[in-house]
Amino acid sequence: MSAPDRISGVLTPVVTPFGQDLMPDAESLIAQCRWLLAQDVGLAVFGTNSEANSLSTDEKLDLIDKLVEAGIDASRMMPGTGTCAITDTVCLTDHAVKAGCGGVLMLPPFFYKGVSDDGLFAAFAEVIERIGDENLRIYLYHIPPMSQVPLSVGLIERLIRAYPETVVGVKDSGGDWSNTKSMLDQGWDDFRVFVGAESFLLANMQNGGAGCISATANVNPAAIKDLFENWQSPDAAAKQAALDAVRDRFMKVPMIPALKSAVAHFSGDPAWSVVRPPLMALDDAQNATLFGALAEIDFIMEGLSQSDKQTARG
Amino acid sequence: MSAPDRISGVLTPVVTPFGQDLMPDAESLIAQCRWLLAQDVGLAVFGTNSEANSLSTDEKLDLIDKLVEAGIDASRMMPGTGTCAITDTVCLTDHAVKAGCGGVLMLPPFFYKGVSDDGLFAAFAEVIERIGDENLRIYLYHIPPMSQVPLSVGLIERLIRAYPETVVGVKDSGGDWSNTKSMLDQGWDDFRVFVGAESFLLANMQNGGAGCISATANVNPAAIKDLFENWQSPDAAAKQAALDAVRDRFMKVPMIPALKSAVAHFSGDPAWSVVRPPLMALDDAQNATLFGALAEIDFIMEGLSQSDKQTARG
Repeated sequence: MSAPDRISGVLTPVVTPFGQDLMPDAESLIAQCRWLLAQDVGLAVFGTNSEANSLSTDEKLDLIDKLVEAGIDASRMMPGTGTCAITDTVCLTDHAVKAGCGGVLMLPPFFYKGVSDDGLFAAFAEVIERIGDENLRIYLYHIPPMSQVPLSVGLIERLIRAYPETVVGVKDSGGDWSNTKSMLDQGWDDFRVFVGAESFLLANMQNGGAGCISATANVNPAAIKDLFENWQSPDAAAKQAALDAVRDRFMKVPMIPALKSAVAHFSGDPAWSVVRPPLMALDDAQNATLFGALAEIDFIMEGLSQSDKQTARG
Repeated sequence: MSAPDRISGVLTPVVTPFGQDLMPDAESLIAQCRWLLAQDVGLAVFGTNSEANSLSTDEKLDLIDKLVEAGIDASRMMPGTGTCAITDTVCLTDHAVKAGCGGVLMLPPFFYKGVSDDGLFAAFAEVIERIGDENLRIYLYHIPPMSQVPLSVGLIERLIRAYPETVVGVKDSGGDWSNTKSMLDQGWDDFRVFVGAESFLLANMQNGGAGCISATANVNPAAIKDLFENWQSPDAAAKQAALDAVRDRFMKVPMIPALKSAVAHFSGDPAWSVVRPPLMALDDAQNATLFGALAEIDFIMEGLSQSDKQTARG
């Protein structure tokens, strides 16, 4: 296995399908990953919007295996592997590396709040040292609205200096462009800065960024990839505005169930709307809000796998 | 196995010993649990101050087994079993019930923020239904400073109504007495309200509470138990003040490493000072602050297990 190249482009935290029993539906996930790859969007499985933190470690290990066994290109996968406990994080990350994943997206340990940069450095270092694999490529995951444990520029710099071939990028989901910009301005050598929302994609590309890893790329992959490819074109600002118009509509209701409602609607497979508690599926009023808003812009998702389940139910 | 009685008294989130390799030291944990039980303090293993969320699910399952195999009375154990994922929570909780634990202390799923009471109710309900064991006794764990996911009085009421023999208590670690008081004022039938700090123990007992589950009971168990037993005595306020004097000194530095420094110091086993990242052991200055403050009140811990390791080390 050759060492993975550093990643750029558009990736999405692939939404995780569940059966009515709330257990992961590997077959539907595989189909969705194929649909995304066909549009050249990479697979940040087990992200926040994948409900990854509602999955057990064992469930995530099993899904990685099933995706790879199904022939999904592991080099296009950047699974989320950061958990509260370094031992769980090591277990998941090691499994991802051995499966050939192009990288991993790593949350800091996120239960204890107010921890020091020294403590966070020690946590990441411990994981890296325990795995001890030259094929490990870590993209740090900064998402203070959920983790409540921010990753400072100073911490990232220390990690890059200590592990320059391993700590190769970051996803900034803080929603604060000035923080992303401050990372871009550091001039870290070939360090890949992804924005966590396509709202900042054009700005990120104009400032030397690597792309985006965005929830909405679950539902609008081709258009987001198009802006990534054509950010220097004269109509880039118009493309950005069109992306924003879609994203704004998904933001009118809770994002994760909204993404799943859209996949359910356009695939004709209602099972896609199932979320795991503590999240809740959209109710009828929320669905009406979402699809009413999407109708204003003639939004559709094309080419989704039309599940046999739908036929059986329908 | 008979159904567990509802719990009252003083419990502590037992600090978890690690070796220099950061792996749990079951033997030291067993010795510490014996010392606590000898002072009639119950074992809320895998609490916040146990660094439970820095342990993997597999590590927690293994430690429950080793404690029970060593003869620790499972009916005195209230392990923390709440995780981000209902499947991990079910796995841990089911294991604890089958091991005969007197109850479990259950965090809500804590990664996703801003979730609804409906979603939290669904999460707890799913866990209870999946386990389906009449010996399950859940003490809900309200600790918004860490979890960032509060448990409202309305949510608790819904859970009690739906599962009156299963949802039997709460630990309030919010640090806001008015919230504890509002729970006590509900008049829920035989519902056990524990405060998360002995600072509120006297007030809790005066208002019908069940006791406390306190970090500092790791280091000051006998005195805290004494106030619990004698809260109606004329010198209860003086006893409370003496407890506060100890607790205030442990609060001068980060609490979890401070507890472990104290156990290390008074047991003569320096290994006790090891914490898992992202936490950091006290540095020399912090230790000087802590032990200087404790010297002001002649604080000691008596009867701790004097480890062979200490002798071996010199």
